[in-house]
Amino acid sequence: MRALRLNQWKSEPVLEEVPVPEPGPGEVLVQVGAAGACHSDLHLMHEFEPGTLPYDPPFTLGHENAGWVHTLGQGVTGLDVGQPVAVVGAWGCGTCDHCLDGLETYCERPDLAPVPGGGGGLGLDGGMADFMLVPSVRHLVPLPDGLEVVDAAPLTDAALTPYHAVRRSLGKLGPGTTAVVIGVGGLGHLGLQVLRALTAARVIAVDGRESARDQASDLGADLVLDPGPDTVERIREATGGRGADVVLDFVGSDETLATAAASVRQVGDITIVGIAGGTLPVSFFGVPYEASVQTTYWGNRRELVEVLDLASRGLLHAATTIYPLEDAVSAYQDLAHGEVTGRAVVVPNDTFTP
Amino acid sequence: MRALRLNQWKSEPVLEEVPVPEPGPGEVLVQVGAAGACHSDLHLMHEFEPGTLPYDPPFTLGHENAGWVHTLGQGVTGLDVGQPVAVVGAWGCGTCDHCLDGLETYCERPDLAPVPGGGGGLGLDGGMADFMLVPSVRHLVPLPDGLEVVDAAPLTDAALTPYHAVRRSLGKLGPGTTAVVIGVGGLGHLGLQVLRALTAARVIAVDGRESARDQASDLGADLVLDPGPDTVERIREATGGRGADVVLDFVGSDETLATAAASVRQVGDITIVGIAGGTLPVSFFGVPYEASVQTTYWGNRRELVEVLDLASRGLLHAATTIYPLEDAVSAYQDLAHGEVTGRAVVVPNDTFTP
Amino acid sequence: MRALRLNQWKSEPVLEEVPVPEPGPGEVLVQVGAAGACHSDLHLMHEFEPGTLPYDPPFTLGHENAGWVHTLGQGVTGLDVGQPVAVVGAWGCGTCDHCLDGLETYCERPDLAPVPGGGGGLGLDGGMADFMLVPSVRHLVPLPDGLEVVDAAPLTDAALTPYHAVRRSLGKLGPGTTAVVIGVGGLGHLGLQVLRALTAARVIAVDGRESARDQASDLGADLVLDPGPDTVERIREATGGRGADVVLDFVGSDETLATAAASVRQVGDITIVGIAGGTLPVSFFGVPYEASVQTTYWGNRRELVEVLDLASRGLLHAATTIYPLEDAVSAYQDLAHGEVTGRAVVVPNDTFTP
Amino acid sequence: MRALRLNQWKSEPVLEEVPVPEPGPGEVLVQVGAAGACHSDLHLMHEFEPGTLPYDPPFTLGHENAGWVHTLGQGVTGLDVGQPVAVVGAWGCGTCDHCLDGLETYCERPDLAPVPGGGGGLGLDGGMADFMLVPSVRHLVPLPDGLEVVDAAPLTDAALTPYHAVRRSLGKLGPGTTAVVIGVGGLGHLGLQVLRALTAARVIAVDGRESARDQASDLGADLVLDPGPDTVERIREATGGRGADVVLDFVGSDETLATAAASVRQVGDITIVGIAGGTLPVSFFGVPYEASVQTTYWGNRRELVEVLDLASRGLLHAATTIYPLEDAVSAYQDLAHGEVTGRAVVVPNDTFTP
Repeated sequence: MRALRLNQWKSEPVLEEVPVPEPGPGEVLVQVGAAGACHSDLHLMHEFEPGTLPYDPPFTLGHENAGWVHTLGQGVTGLDVGQPVAVVGAWGCGTCDHCLDGLETYCERPDLAPVPGGGGGLGLDGGMADFMLVPSVRHLVPLPDGLEVVDAAPLTDAALTPYHAVRRSLGKLGPGTTAVVIGVGGLGHLGLQVLRALTAARVIAVDGRESARDQASDLGADLVLDPGPDTVERIREATGGRGADVVLDFVGSDETLATAAASVRQVGDITIVGIAGGTLPVSFFGVPYEASVQTTYWGNRRELVEVLDLASRGLLHAATTIYPLEDAVSAYQDLAHGEVTGRAVVVPNDTFTP
Repeated sequence: MRALRLNQWKSEPVLEEVPVPEPGPGEVLVQVGAAGACHSDLHLMHEFEPGTLPYDPPFTLGHENAGWVHTLGQGVTGLDVGQPVAVVGAWGCGTCDHCLDGLETYCERPDLAPVPGGGGGLGLDGGMADFMLVPSVRHLVPLPDGLEVVDAAPLTDAALTPYHAVRRSLGKLGPGTTAVVIGVGGLGHLGLQVLRALTAARVIAVDGRESARDQASDLGADLVLDPGPDTVERIREATGGRGADVVLDFVGSDETLATAAASVRQVGDITIVGIAGGTLPVSFFGVPYEASVQTTYWGNRRELVEVLDLASRGLLHAATTIYPLEDAVSAYQDLAHGEVTGRAVVVPNDTFTP
Repeated sequence: MRALRLNQWKSEPVLEEVPVPEPGPGEVLVQVGAAGACHSDLHLMHEFEPGTLPYDPPFTLGHENAGWVHTLGQGVTGLDVGQPVAVVGAWGCGTCDHCLDGLETYCERPDLAPVPGGGGGLGLDGGMADFMLVPSVRHLVPLPDGLEVVDAAPLTDAALTPYHAVRRSLGKLGPGTTAVVIGVGGLGHLGLQVLRALTAARVIAVDGRESARDQASDLGADLVLDPGPDTVERIREATGGRGADVVLDFVGSDETLATAAASVRQVGDITIVGIAGGTLPVSFFGVPYEASVQTTYWGNRRELVEVLDLASRGLLHAATTIYPLEDAVSAYQDLAHGEVTGRAVVVPNDTFTP
Repeated sequence: MRALRLNQWKSEPVLEEVPVPEPGPGEVLVQVGAAGACHSDLHLMHEFEPGTLPYDPPFTLGHENAGWVHTLGQGVTGLDVGQPVAVVGAWGCGTCDHCLDGLETYCERPDLAPVPGGGGGLGLDGGMADFMLVPSVRHLVPLPDGLEVVDAAPLTDAALTPYHAVRRSLGKLGPGTTAVVIGVGGLGHLGLQVLRALTAARVIAVDGRESARDQASDLGADLVLDPGPDTVERIREATGGRGADVVLDFVGSDETLATAAASVRQVGDITIVGIAGGTLPVSFFGVPYEASVQTTYWGNRRELVEVLDLASRGLLHAATTIYPLEDAVSAYQDLAHGEVTGRAVVVPNDTFTP
């Protein structure tokens, strides 16, 4: 089969022929229908010295995957061959307390996981290939009716990450509250949709790009701001002086975090999703009383079930540009050059072929 | 009546004769039985330039108060004359959303409060006097049977503050979890008792003073540490490598906060209670994933009801040194010199006198 | 001023001239803009023997009220004369734990309340009059921009009651879940709107009247059922066999409760809102494991703030038929004869007159 | 190996020689160290007609099990041979939403489970044998230090069941609240310990047997009642008239449920744990407003981890009477005759033998 391989650190991926994997006991072979090309893959290809990450090439890229169940390993139940599925991306050890609670993103025994701190496309073979081996049925979520494989794939990361971030703050997002979304890009525009679907909170979107602000308006943001010296003041004004109950920072720079801290309400949440590398200095009088500051990372199976349900009902949608697998290298090049509209999705197979 | 007055910023308080206040509609006159002398009062006397705080002298000191209902203003119901009560210290506007939710510490309309950002003893006349005027029945909590006025007073701050901090983290403190208490002083030793009373979490106490560590052991801490280069490692060891689910920092210096960040578990809580003025720089890889960092300030009525209930059952107790009102100046002097064992409590009246 | 008086049990109300009340300390005089005529008022007029209820006539009817602040009693802050407000209907003692937690509907010291188990229009003078005396500012919620007094009044009961019922079950109403609304009448059609505004749950509406089913469809119900022998089967089918996560029974008869018990999912909620007088026998094998069964009654201030916020944004709306105060008797007659479309609302004053 | 077999419905079990099972992929063979003899096994042996339950004999009895990991099936990680473990008893399909959320007791696809609605000792071979086959590592919990296998076994049911019941009500069990335990038997006396370990609630215990009341006092109940005509009144008195926040009914008869309904506070919980077969008729005025009534069944893995942690710290302990495996028949006979003190525990092996 074909597979887009990252063969060493600081190299370009190559489309190669590799053997089709065979599922062992408990494993499932998925025929890949779609694999999202993520910005973080560009970092993966270009930025790491050997030994920096807890895993090493070679492996097949692609950590946002959906397809069809092709072959069931021994002992696997609950799935049918040909059934469309999305792949949960973070693969933990499955036996530590966090994994057993469904928090595999925060596995506490990465040394026992299939690969430490990764999953398919991150240290293990991912979905930029005709087939992908998934080590456990618990990493597969059947697609609900009405959701296509090609639409599901990018949601496993670009929607799941903001979904997890919103869900942990739901208790602070009742009617009358306000959420601020900083950065209306790939994740942020889905975060905005998640807020609209799950809460009655008002949403304020902040982005320096006119096209992003237009998109935020189209998606139902109550107020859209071009960041500037008066951003904090305008958020305070729009919230009767109280500040925002929840700020989701999809950028995560020093500047956006400072805006978040100045805009948040007492007892609110500031959640850092974006990895621009900024720092927020938290001190007794530097952030409003009892406002919680935390990072957040990806999401888990239970949440992906919910994301896919929302998408199947039209409440979540990611715009996509489609590439066949043979053009996967181009997909990443376009991505690197900022030439992709929406999410770049690589399609190895259009339909299930038994 | 006698009252310990702070007459101007940067001055020593003076015991003076002042008129007994008369309760207006909705107000309650309390005969004071005990008023705690708090370290923060020393800051109040000595450190502020005029205009720094949102209120000004003169006022009577004492913000940790208990006594007996003496005179009911017009329209007050639900209290009996002679009934022992504790005073909730933070007096908000009573009409903003936070106040109506019982979060008067985080009042959002301080301009409508009796005094902005304060209460009795903080901008308004407090409890270091024979009588104290309380502006609303909602600031009074009847003492449960078995709790003396003199024991209740210090709990309204020194126990209420850690209680609020623990309570907001209860969801992360189930059996099998671990809480770290940094600083086993006036608040910390009560925080430890709160943890023991409300949770089945293991407790690790960290303090550089041998007497404080002994006290922590006596109060049931599972592990007591003298802070040093191996503190983080020992916390990790004691938690199977996972880290502490909740860290309550009653010191709040740069050093203790760095220890907290290095010791906390993913998805845990770091709560800054102490006002040593430290800063914790929060960034994507500087704190474990999704660990929440927040300050916290004092507590509210609902929580004081619970604190007093715990105390009435012997589950919370603050050690005290008693001073008559005429020695209140000495109480603060002793406090400034570190010569008080437990909490200094000033007693204007031993019993209720109708 | 004019007032619609219930002068004795088992009598028709009479429009009479009475003195304008004067607000005492802490009280507020509201000029009434709208007072909803509720079915429960018909019960109140016609069904009770003296001594059955904890209060007695004479009093002015009307417990769903909105208007404008007219005169502030001594010591009242936080409101401006002329400001439009809605009245929270359940007036508790204000000092018991439940009241202090904002649960005045469940006041535990009704003997200390203005009237036991009631409020304005229920034992005390209500809003079917030119003016209404409200005993505390905490019973008033300022109307948000964009919401008219006449639209707000019916929401204080007909929307607040289902809102409270939905809110307590929010934790069971995440994406992928299903709520069943039995009875799409005055409360049920607002319950359906609340579910749509606050959750991403699918909604199944059950009602025997075609017009109610049409309304449910218009309001966005995912599935609308005419009750019959296959109702339970169809709910199970629509939920993949699992059953409904939450069933809100706005009828409350033996039959509807039996349907609820047979339709609910394990660990779900059955909430009885309607007072048709039915009984659900709960036993170990009669209701799915750990499904919770409870009644619920009206709602509280914090929730009314949220209801009005939703309404001001167009997310909640009650259809109304307007009557001037002089036709209030007719309003109740039409109501008794089933001749009112939507909620009957009596309008004593069209605008604020200082 | 030896195994206590139930060979047909309505028969006595027989100790027989059977082959040692071999663990397939993902399975684990446990050498049994202790298996609790549960009252429900007596029902299982004596009361069911063929076809009543969703499974059939023959199978080995014993659903409260602990032992040592003996042989790991292919692909099993995270456990070491010789490691002491407790067995989670309810084995669901592992793939439905409830199972993936850790609620295998409430599995929604029992047709896909190893046996529908059961587990080891309930339709499949249980722990009254030298060895027991466990179908997945997720059903095993490593014992914490300081907890013996023989003490752990009975906790997997007799402590886990009340633990689950208490845990779901934790939000209603803050300081100042009151829990009522009806029935201080095998489960109830552990429920009382769980309440003491996890909450600061006052506990009222109700039991007609003097020995049970003595035990309740020894375990720290704040008030112990002999059921009678004044039970409800005494509970109301002890709670300031409010009623109990949570009532756990470990009997579950019509009488005890009526007591529960009359004793519970508004917005409280009545949880039916005991299977005496009683019914509580729930109607609008028959149970206090918004008090929730529900059954509850056993518990799950996450909760067993917590139960074992409590036990390892001495906070939970079940009294036991030990029988060697060859006396297992006698154990059940003694149990049937009411001649067992504490929990009867059958011990097939004293120590691990590789």
